Amino acid sequence: MASAAPEGGRETRPSPASAGTRVVRTVLRGVAQVDFQPNHWTGLVFLVALFAGGWRFGVFGLLGTVTATLTAFLLGADRHGIVLGLEGFSGTLVGVALVLYLGAGWMTALVVVGAAVATGVVTSATTVWLKPYGLPGLTAPFCMVTTVMVLGAPAYHRVWAGHPATPAPSASRPGTAMSGTDVWHGFCSGVGQVFFQDKWYVGLLFLLGLAVSSLAAAAAAAVSSLIGLLVAWGLGAAAADIGAGLYGYNAVLTGIALAGTFLAPNRAGLVYAAVGAATATALTAGIANLFTVVGGHTLTWPFVLVTWVFLAAVPLFPRLRRPG
Amino acid sequence: MASAAPEGGRETRPSPASAGTRVVRTVLRGVAQVDFQPNHWTGLVFLVALFAGGWRFGVFGLLGTVTATLTAFLLGADRHGIVLGLEGFSGTLVGVALVLYLGAGWMTALVVVGAAVATGVVTSATTVWLKPYGLPGLTAPFCMVTTVMVLGAPAYHRVWAGHPATPAPSASRPGTAMSGTDVWHGFCSGVGQVFFQDKWYVGLLFLLGLAVSSLAAAAAAAVSSLIGLLVAWGLGAAAADIGAGLYGYNAVLTGIALAGTFLAPNRAGLVYAAVGAATATALTAGIANLFTVVGGHTLTWPFVLVTWVFLAAVPLFPRLRRPG
Amino acid sequence: MASAAPEGGRETRPSPASAGTRVVRTVLRGVAQVDFQPNHWTGLVFLVALFAGGWRFGVFGLLGTVTATLTAFLLGADRHGIVLGLEGFSGTLVGVALVLYLGAGWMTALVVVGAAVATGVVTSATTVWLKPYGLPGLTAPFCMVTTVMVLGAPAYHRVWAGHPATPAPSASRPGTAMSGTDVWHGFCSGVGQVFFQDKWYVGLLFLLGLAVSSLAAAAAAAVSSLIGLLVAWGLGAAAADIGAGLYGYNAVLTGIALAGTFLAPNRAGLVYAAVGAATATALTAGIANLFTVVGGHTLTWPFVLVTWVFLAAVPLFPRLRRPG
Repeated sequence: MASAAPEGGRETRPSPASAGTRVVRTVLRGVAQVDFQPNHWTGLVFLVALFAGGWRFGVFGLLGTVTATLTAFLLGADRHGIVLGLEGFSGTLVGVALVLYLGAGWMTALVVVGAAVATGVVTSATTVWLKPYGLPGLTAPFCMVTTVMVLGAPAYHRVWAGHPATPAPSASRPGTAMSGTDVWHGFCSGVGQVFFQDKWYVGLLFLLGLAVSSLAAAAAAAVSSLIGLLVAWGLGAAAADIGAGLYGYNAVLTGIALAGTFLAPNRAGLVYAAVGAATATALTAGIANLFTVVGGHTLTWPFVLVTWVFLAAVPLFPRLRRPG
Repeated sequence: MASAAPEGGRETRPSPASAGTRVVRTVLRGVAQVDFQPNHWTGLVFLVALFAGGWRFGVFGLLGTVTATLTAFLLGADRHGIVLGLEGFSGTLVGVALVLYLGAGWMTALVVVGAAVATGVVTSATTVWLKPYGLPGLTAPFCMVTTVMVLGAPAYHRVWAGHPATPAPSASRPGTAMSGTDVWHGFCSGVGQVFFQDKWYVGLLFLLGLAVSSLAAAAAAAVSSLIGLLVAWGLGAAAADIGAGLYGYNAVLTGIALAGTFLAPNRAGLVYAAVGAATATALTAGIANLFTVVGGHTLTWPFVLVTWVFLAAVPLFPRLRRPG
Repeated sequence: MASAAPEGGRETRPSPASAGTRVVRTVLRGVAQVDFQPNHWTGLVFLVALFAGGWRFGVFGLLGTVTATLTAFLLGADRHGIVLGLEGFSGTLVGVALVLYLGAGWMTALVVVGAAVATGVVTSATTVWLKPYGLPGLTAPFCMVTTVMVLGAPAYHRVWAGHPATPAPSASRPGTAMSGTDVWHGFCSGVGQVFFQDKWYVGLLFLLGLAVSSLAAAAAAAVSSLIGLLVAWGLGAAAADIGAGLYGYNAVLTGIALAGTFLAPNRAGLVYAAVGAATATALTAGIANLFTVVGGHTLTWPFVLVTWVFLAAVPLFPRLRRPG
């Protein structure tokens, strides 16, 4: 099992080149697994999107991915999961989130390494805890580690020294009247904010990366981003926050997770996934209160909580079932 | 099992009339299950009490009960639990709580429907989570859904627009000196605040409804309301809050749950239940801090947390045992 | 099993004297178990250290220990665990913490008794909950009960009336420049703050008490206190808080727990324990935000959370194993 690689082929006679290739693919799959895709080409597109958002997102995202994967490797975690990228994706998000909140610098790099090591341990702990229920850990390790780092950071002088201001978009532009730009920017950024990116073309790149791996996943992401947009508008959320994709990305992740990834996409399953995406959207503002200090970003807590609840309930609902 | 009805009898030859009757009884049992009573007459008295508190409590409570029950039915949940009202009671409380905090209006009705649907899913998820420990879900689904709605509501313009001010009674009348009125109002409202009702005669109606189903449960509620009153007074809580029943209702629910419902009412069990009721009272102020924005109502979190802890510990305490 | 005492010997023919001795030893072991040591001599040194910190810490610590142990005894909990002190240590900490935050007085004594009774129940509940995962309850019962008491206390007039001000040391001396005194005071108090003691010689007494039971545990405590000091300094925490030991004690507990107590101290295990101690330190400021009102003491939450996560992950890391 140790040398099993999903793309098959050359691992019967490993050469230095193929070892290097496997490492690169493992890291890229780590980036792709943020959106549940064990596909290194998707990871490559996602990485390009991160660099398009800013060099620091690409560099710190890679740093987090590599550190988390290496931690799992050194602790002797299951090799198959490592190769699929399952030990890397929380590290990716840790790197991207912390460079956004703390600024690009050597101290932030150190903090990202420390946080990614912690993420490696938390990932395994979460797996053990959820095993009796058959639930996936999702991005919970990232959320847990980043939450405590972000809450504690203001007390640490060296960490907090160069942090940029990250107010919520609605702070400078309050009001609920949405423009056409808010709508299509919000639609694209709903996909991009999964990686904390608020530029519309970066969001489109992520959607493209998803389509490389799975058209169904890309469709689920697009529909879920629309659901998030509509629910947030219907509830009367601030237009600037909707336009930045802040109400969409938890719906996007929940939609991909429930529509096909962890649940068979039959008719009841798709309705269930749509309700889940709407629920994750509605949950967003409640959790955002905790994160005012860092611009009202809720990390991916709403997605994690809603997806856990919706998946845990499945055994009691005979019309729903796990896939394949 | 699908057609089993606790009251036995006519379901061997179902007729349109009996189907309608069964639906009405199921909804009424949903209301009654807030206090653990699978009895539709109790549900009827409770419903009258809600309307006596105000038409909006009756209407929105019914809306929540029906929506949550329907959600469980559509998802194919266990028919026996539905008939017993176990899928409805969290919806009842969602409706009553949200109309109190958000005001009676069409937007609130929409929010109640959405929240009750979420409650249906959360109820099943909680059942699955607690199964290994043999613990009941209690009103946790209501607490979880309402907490996030209430925390998030101020960020949603359309939801928050018409919300009434709901300051804690102690805001306008601080001080700890209790009058005789505080005592007997607090005793009655301790039972009524389970349903967020602060009129003394509404509380008495709920006590009457309990007695219809079980004199033991009514006695447990009355004694527990007194315990809550005494503990809160002893700790020095604000007299106006005690007089409104805010320190009593978690004790009432904990008392009913531990004295007879989930624990055999032997001597050790009754002492244990009394300690539990006192603990739930003391816990109230700590949790109230989280809910300052909505008048310091702690929902039924203290009851849920204390009852879970006290029931989970039972296997290690040989003097206590589950009933039946 | 009921009369088994770890120190063996006289229990075949119990006499009044030996019964009294056993009770005293049980209580002392309760105090010692705060640092995982089932050794009554260690408990005696710890008790002396508490009295050296102030009579009220000794008296209220004893009150909590005795009450929690008695609660477990009356409820019929496992006799062997009681004798080992496993039912007492959360009560010790409840007594010490509450007298620090609420002041020495009769009302505080009542609150300590109530909180220690609750702790007895929570200890058993935690044991049941964690059993499927093979995790120890640690000081979680103390943390849970004290957190809700401390959050709720300001609402209870009689409880809060005589409370002393307990600002964080950095409130009167901000800044991150550490003096030599900060370093060695911080090192000693890192051990002492496990019991909320901020005098350097009290910390040394606790280190001595540890050495009486186990030189390895004392070494783990000393190294972990240094790790806490270094990590907090590296992150740029306030020098006065580091000097008071506030960043060290969670590292100390985590270090003792992971290096030898719950994990075999092989090379991988010791590195893992050091990473755990560093993680608990970094977590401290994030949790401190919740406890600003009581001087920024985080109780032992960081230790509990980090140790649970690090122990839960062990089954997936073949280089680590449980001891024995």
